[in-house]
Amino acid sequence: MSNDTRDTGEGEFALIDRILKPLAADTPAALGLTDDAAVLTPSKGKDLVLTKDAMVAGVHFFDSDLPGDIARKLLRVNLSDLAAMGAAPVGYFLATFWPEDLPRSWIEDFADGLALDQVEFAIGLMGGDTVRTPGPLSLSLTAIGEVATDKALRRNGAEEGDLIVVSGTIGDGALGLLAAREELSDLDTTDEEYLIDRYQLPEPRLALGQALVGRATSCIDISDGLIADIGHLTEESGLGAVIDWEKVPLSDAAEAALQSGKNLIEAILTGGDDYELAFTLPSARRDDLVKLAKEGGVKLTIVGEMVAGEGVRVKREDGSDMPLTARGWQHF
Amino acid sequence: MSNDTRDTGEGEFALIDRILKPLAADTPAALGLTDDAAVLTPSKGKDLVLTKDAMVAGVHFFDSDLPGDIARKLLRVNLSDLAAMGAAPVGYFLATFWPEDLPRSWIEDFADGLALDQVEFAIGLMGGDTVRTPGPLSLSLTAIGEVATDKALRRNGAEEGDLIVVSGTIGDGALGLLAAREELSDLDTTDEEYLIDRYQLPEPRLALGQALVGRATSCIDISDGLIADIGHLTEESGLGAVIDWEKVPLSDAAEAALQSGKNLIEAILTGGDDYELAFTLPSARRDDLVKLAKEGGVKLTIVGEMVAGEGVRVKREDGSDMPLTARGWQHF
Repeated sequence: MSNDTRDTGEGEFALIDRILKPLAADTPAALGLTDDAAVLTPSKGKDLVLTKDAMVAGVHFFDSDLPGDIARKLLRVNLSDLAAMGAAPVGYFLATFWPEDLPRSWIEDFADGLALDQVEFAIGLMGGDTVRTPGPLSLSLTAIGEVATDKALRRNGAEEGDLIVVSGTIGDGALGLLAAREELSDLDTTDEEYLIDRYQLPEPRLALGQALVGRATSCIDISDGLIADIGHLTEESGLGAVIDWEKVPLSDAAEAALQSGKNLIEAILTGGDDYELAFTLPSARRDDLVKLAKEGGVKLTIVGEMVAGEGVRVKREDGSDMPLTARGWQHF
Repeated sequence: MSNDTRDTGEGEFALIDRILKPLAADTPAALGLTDDAAVLTPSKGKDLVLTKDAMVAGVHFFDSDLPGDIARKLLRVNLSDLAAMGAAPVGYFLATFWPEDLPRSWIEDFADGLALDQVEFAIGLMGGDTVRTPGPLSLSLTAIGEVATDKALRRNGAEEGDLIVVSGTIGDGALGLLAAREELSDLDTTDEEYLIDRYQLPEPRLALGQALVGRATSCIDISDGLIADIGHLTEESGLGAVIDWEKVPLSDAAEAALQSGKNLIEAILTGGDDYELAFTLPSARRDDLVKLAKEGGVKLTIVGEMVAGEGVRVKREDGSDMPLTARGWQHF
């Protein structure tokens, strides 16, 4: 099978050496990518948190997206999973499936994107694999983080009466996707660019996640949509949730999009790709929110409450339930 | 992008629940696949060893291969990397890129293969991701193992005069690929089936790898071909190697194939997919080989010696150098 590529010139090892090896230069666990595997000495008193996400060109990103942006989103989506568990990132593994016709420069730009975010998040490449595919460019990344032993944030710890809190603003990811598809043409350029940027380059809430350890009763990152992800908290905690639509924090750009007359409420509540954190906090700890927002470096907003029962209700200002047809974003 | 699959019925979460969740049932780190990430509490006094390999249908396996065999080979190839570092496996993460037209039964058979090898190797699924692809079936697996702190076997520790030892028999993987392509038609059915089985279902030498910790000076698994992989040991150790062709251990089936008249020596020496271990041992420790073979549950054969200089020479019985055109199997 793959030995029919024996004569393609610069081989697997040389390619890894030249383009990817610098990404592992400052990561002792990578062993310089010289060996069969990476060796990681865990920090004392820490659990390892591991997550893996896969992306396919034309499915999870546009073929026309910049290679550096694709790399950074892949990394950040995984870092967001670490944030949701309260972990600090330590490194990552990367499997890349390259189409034959992909220019070498594309791969270099992709590596440059990773290099940028390695500095941003103080992590490094630990290892991986590089293969050819006759199909679309595909990527799989495994991110590794650390959290104090037995302190990882889970989805199943919420209690009845806990406040439901979200970071940042909600719906920008879904609206950014619509804008990227040119389906929000009424918006001014600044708002459009803001939303597309939020869609393409999410901000994993790592500082917030770490600040929530020992404080939040449950936590998740909003990747499938606010309703679906709070739904995961309710399911795992054996509770229901009530969300106040009026309290859901929106960016100025999202407000402007809403004013355009299009019905975008469902997109905002059920679209994916926000990568904000949603967490629950005992109501007695409400005053902690100021400190948490400061430590997390992001605005925090109480959007609802965990209640007995099951399912997620969204209340309008007049107290009536909002009828939502899609409960979230199904990746499959 | 992926939200256009919102209406395909059984979604990502339900599919993972039904087919993959049982694979994680006995793995505490997986948290029942309910959360954003897995949480692994490392054993005291251990380093973690991590490796990631990717495979594509039509490139790394035949479309006609049985789904269970594909699953098991993917897992075993990664376990072989752990074996080469002396690690004991603890679990794995799996990213799967499913083509739209793949029957659900195919995925179930694939999961059954994983379940078989989970029992065989006492490991479990810890997490992963499941996406759709318009391209060929693609897979990425990250395997995790443990080894005593600072004791992982490396490629760079060989010394001049060290014996070069291999486990099992060499060349069966490459000949098995030729047999699977029906390019070894002179062979009798038993030999053919033996070689194809060796190609399709390699045996990761985990017990041997663990027995070599603290004894071997360097180690690698033979995935790129004997010459290329011993070449990696020489490069990383700053030495050369001399291999005696006469000493390279061959299976009865490989001997029979050699008798057929075809020139298969190069395939045997430079083909990939044997997944045996090649390691170096101080010559003063030659007597350890009996014990190591017993602990490893596999035959061990001295095939050569590490020498000053660089590169890998293969000597014929008459002392002359064998001229090899391909130095190994380049995956890319």
